[in-house]
Amino acid sequence: MKVTMAHGSGGESTSGLIKNVFAKYFNNDILNRLEDSAVVPGNSRLAMTTDSFVVTPIEFPGGNIGRLSVCGTVNDLLMSGSKPMYITCGFILEEGLDLDDLERQVKALSECAKEAGVTIVTGDTKVIENRGGEPGLIINTSGVGFIPDGSEAIGPSNLKDGDVIILSGNLGDHHAAILSKRMGIENNIQSDAAPLTEAVGNLMAQKIRVHAMRDVTRGGLGTVLNEFAESSDCEIDLYEEKLPVSSEVRDFCGLLGLDPIYMGNEGKFVLSVHADDAKKALSIIRGSKYCENAVVIGEVKKNNRAVDMHRVILNTAIGGKRVVGLMYGEGLPRIC
Amino acid sequence: MKVTMAHGSGGESTSGLIKNVFAKYFNNDILNRLEDSAVVPGNSRLAMTTDSFVVTPIEFPGGNIGRLSVCGTVNDLLMSGSKPMYITCGFILEEGLDLDDLERQVKALSECAKEAGVTIVTGDTKVIENRGGEPGLIINTSGVGFIPDGSEAIGPSNLKDGDVIILSGNLGDHHAAILSKRMGIENNIQSDAAPLTEAVGNLMAQKIRVHAMRDVTRGGLGTVLNEFAESSDCEIDLYEEKLPVSSEVRDFCGLLGLDPIYMGNEGKFVLSVHADDAKKALSIIRGSKYCENAVVIGEVKKNNRAVDMHRVILNTAIGGKRVVGLMYGEGLPRIC
Repeated sequence: MKVTMAHGSGGESTSGLIKNVFAKYFNNDILNRLEDSAVVPGNSRLAMTTDSFVVTPIEFPGGNIGRLSVCGTVNDLLMSGSKPMYITCGFILEEGLDLDDLERQVKALSECAKEAGVTIVTGDTKVIENRGGEPGLIINTSGVGFIPDGSEAIGPSNLKDGDVIILSGNLGDHHAAILSKRMGIENNIQSDAAPLTEAVGNLMAQKIRVHAMRDVTRGGLGTVLNEFAESSDCEIDLYEEKLPVSSEVRDFCGLLGLDPIYMGNEGKFVLSVHADDAKKALSIIRGSKYCENAVVIGEVKKNNRAVDMHRVILNTAIGGKRVVGLMYGEGLPRIC
Repeated sequence: MKVTMAHGSGGESTSGLIKNVFAKYFNNDILNRLEDSAVVPGNSRLAMTTDSFVVTPIEFPGGNIGRLSVCGTVNDLLMSGSKPMYITCGFILEEGLDLDDLERQVKALSECAKEAGVTIVTGDTKVIENRGGEPGLIINTSGVGFIPDGSEAIGPSNLKDGDVIILSGNLGDHHAAILSKRMGIENNIQSDAAPLTEAVGNLMAQKIRVHAMRDVTRGGLGTVLNEFAESSDCEIDLYEEKLPVSSEVRDFCGLLGLDPIYMGNEGKFVLSVHADDAKKALSIIRGSKYCENAVVIGEVKKNNRAVDMHRVILNTAIGGKRVVGLMYGEGLPRIC
């Protein structure tokens, strides 16, 4: 069966699609009411986020758009120090999409939501014309998380002199997996798309003094750290030889002239922690799912220069120093 | 200037777009932090909703996609009896879209959010290829509202025998405006896209016993009332001569063989209220912005038939009775 324009009409066909495809997997008391708005229990402070996922192809080694669309939103919520609670899903389907393909994505999304401990509370479906190429789909997920009372502010402007920068695992996997698939290159590279619920939950539970935290997605590590340095007006010193990259991704990058510092991941985060907590934080992260390759990659230094000299410096393996600037241009389009 | 694929990369160009286009209009303390997640104050019960807007053309008589994308989500939140508080915006832009066109939509969205009393707390931007036709854009908005403590449950399964059905204004305006524009038909029909904040807020403030409430969008009044009748296992009797349709929309429908009962609006709602409150409710609604043509259109009757005979009955102007079924097929694609 194929998706038709009628599936987006709001009438009988839409309702059939919801019952036969979505309700089959998104099965909870709140969603089952099939209201346009979901009513959920609240709390004192909320985190909200939204992300649209337009990745092509929709299935790739190690993941798919369904899983990705939970990971992206859950990880965004986690990075604010909140506990992700509820997510909404907006599906935008291209006419002609195979319902089996859709169902696989809905299933993956549902499974990933369970893994991440979030409830899908409401959704929406629209259909647009296919104007060429394989009919695809776009998924928007938005989410709400609760911030525990009394928790410290976490944000890119909170970096402190002497902080230690920890990265939760290998760089570039998602980017390299997508690109390999698009180019038809055969290798064993898998996307790292994963919810970071366990690692972040453990850090919070152990009251680690996290000053800033960000998942490494579009724009890569270079972009995130530049934002940290600018917001906090500080310098970040990185050690090139510590940056974790799998040998396969390293080879892939060498071949194509790519720099892992600017490549997107979907299951990695970087954080700036109080120096006294760094050892404990590293051990907690390494002991958490999807984070066994976590390492200390650098440190934060006060900005002793003129204004606007907040910078990210890479100390290269051969003893040189290189400024890591912002990423310019396209990066890889439709990577998430 | 045109949107390029680089605007969706997460790098420098994305950040320029956010600063130059979005931040210019979405200007509030929460959003200005430009975090992936927004932290907002909470409450005891939340309503959440999501909606993607794919309407074509993006500008039409009486509205545009920017205004529409606030109205849709705000009205969904209102219909749950909540006070809409925060919305998120996900923009999906087609490569080649003119930045001036985008800016007009962002502006309209921002102005409508102010009118509706909601705060835009976080956003996301993606770019996809244009595969033919005018480059367009899709907007997802998701929202959170707070439900006042002690308020009665409002929902399609709460209709009571004897309830009065009130409709807040003329049917079919949005649908007819979009279709006129697409077909190049010249007339004065305007979309009714509007946030229903004032009318619903007034009803809630006056403690009107609203049992169910729904905005009349895709699928039209017929679809909404069928859902009410099915969820509450009751019959709804409508009076055809009371259904409000402007003379211009009536002529337009006559010409094209359209039935206003299945046509989408974007600034109308239908509600089922306790009979004793009906007069007061009607007066409150009529006194509120965008609702001056509100009327009583029917009543709720107990289902005295066999199971599954919950129905919507139209008592026609010439004394006949007609079952109003669900809408089948496409309706008008990409109307919202």
